[in-house]
Amino acid sequence: MPDSDPLKNIRIVLCETSHPGNIGAAARAMKTMGLAKLHLVKPERFPDAEADWLAARATDVLKRAHVHDTLDAALHGVAFAVACTARTREIAVPQLNAREAAARVVEVARAQTAALVFGNETYGLTTDEVNKCRVLATIPANPRYSALNLAAAVQIFAYELRIAARGDEVHTFEPELAAHQDIEAFYLHLETLMAEVGFLNPRHPKKLMPRLRRLFARARLQPEEVNLLRGIFKALSRPRKQ
Amino acid sequence: MPDSDPLKNIRIVLCETSHPGNIGAAARAMKTMGLAKLHLVKPERFPDAEADWLAARATDVLKRAHVHDTLDAALHGVAFAVACTARTREIAVPQLNAREAAARVVEVARAQTAALVFGNETYGLTTDEVNKCRVLATIPANPRYSALNLAAAVQIFAYELRIAARGDEVHTFEPELAAHQDIEAFYLHLETLMAEVGFLNPRHPKKLMPRLRRLFARARLQPEEVNLLRGIFKALSRPRKQ
Repeated sequence: MPDSDPLKNIRIVLCETSHPGNIGAAARAMKTMGLAKLHLVKPERFPDAEADWLAARATDVLKRAHVHDTLDAALHGVAFAVACTARTREIAVPQLNAREAAARVVEVARAQTAALVFGNETYGLTTDEVNKCRVLATIPANPRYSALNLAAAVQIFAYELRIAARGDEVHTFEPELAAHQDIEAFYLHLETLMAEVGFLNPRHPKKLMPRLRRLFARARLQPEEVNLLRGIFKALSRPRKQ
Repeated sequence: MPDSDPLKNIRIVLCETSHPGNIGAAARAMKTMGLAKLHLVKPERFPDAEADWLAARATDVLKRAHVHDTLDAALHGVAFAVACTARTREIAVPQLNAREAAARVVEVARAQTAALVFGNETYGLTTDEVNKCRVLATIPANPRYSALNLAAAVQIFAYELRIAARGDEVHTFEPELAAHQDIEAFYLHLETLMAEVGFLNPRHPKKLMPRLRRLFARARLQPEEVNLLRGIFKALSRPRKQ
């Protein structure tokens, strides 16, 4: 029975990984984005101390990882498998970018199990492995150097999956803004002070106030900031002995 | 003179990195997305064989990396700096997600230099470092485990930058922004003046300067606006007869 959280229904499948450190780093990348299901097809060394080391506090993902002899076994029960690569390929599988693929995977994973399949560090996915997947997904990369580290590729896909499942989630902090009349009083205060010290000529004000208005409008002043600025201007312009 | 390719006008700044392997992996992540300008602030060990090893075929990025003693030096000439973090912070700096931040950075980088700033692996960016940046950018992550590896975070931001730079977006008008060193000089000037008139007690400065930094960071000051503000502050504080 699939979980109601689509991220819980997504497997990361690593095929024939050579370096256990990459398995650990991939586990860490997964956990940072809320993925937990790791499946390994014929890893060269696993479990391994180096994998644990690079997993940092994601060793729980490693502990619950499944090891398989074949990709077919790793994809058992999977409704939608995506072959993930940084290279573009001459294969007649439908090709998507990572973002589009993540959206499709999350859609499927709301009701069924989906999988992202990654190849060996050196030679990538074999044609056979790609052909066992429904689509091929590519990370847009520098055409002259597209060799993402395995865990880095897992990180990008996991990140796109999280955004597809949860939205952008970072809530922009929106503080209280100062009221119109207080901003206007601030401008008037500033204008008066500048006239007093001769910085502004009331007969030829030029574009001084409009420029300051634009500047402070962009700052989207908060109430206590208006008070702070008024306090500073007042303190600065207080007559002092020469 | 900025390059016409925005990716060429973007610096990746790594602050006080402990592990040289992370510097190498970050260089590789950069190069896969077409970024080449790496700046290091007080790295614990650099250059280092482990960095070279993890950079794979991106050692050219390491070779051309600049090493600095301070973040200010690394941001010299930068018009728009983004503090990159996986944690949400209790700071009133404008907060964006990685995708929004990448779009803003690329806009600026079409004409000026921009920078993404990353903190130490263990303790992240200090409040001081964050306050030297214009915005804070956050990678949406698992709230129970948001500890992305440094190179993985660089990879995600670099990926978003590449998509923002190469996508077919409508370009919004972006005015020229004041350079980091001019903004810093402005803050220093303001701080000095406030101390002179007794508004700021240098022994108990409280949160005055951080608050002003946040305010003016939101305003995204242009070069002539920095001059205008300095002119106003100076005129206001000129000693006058009582």
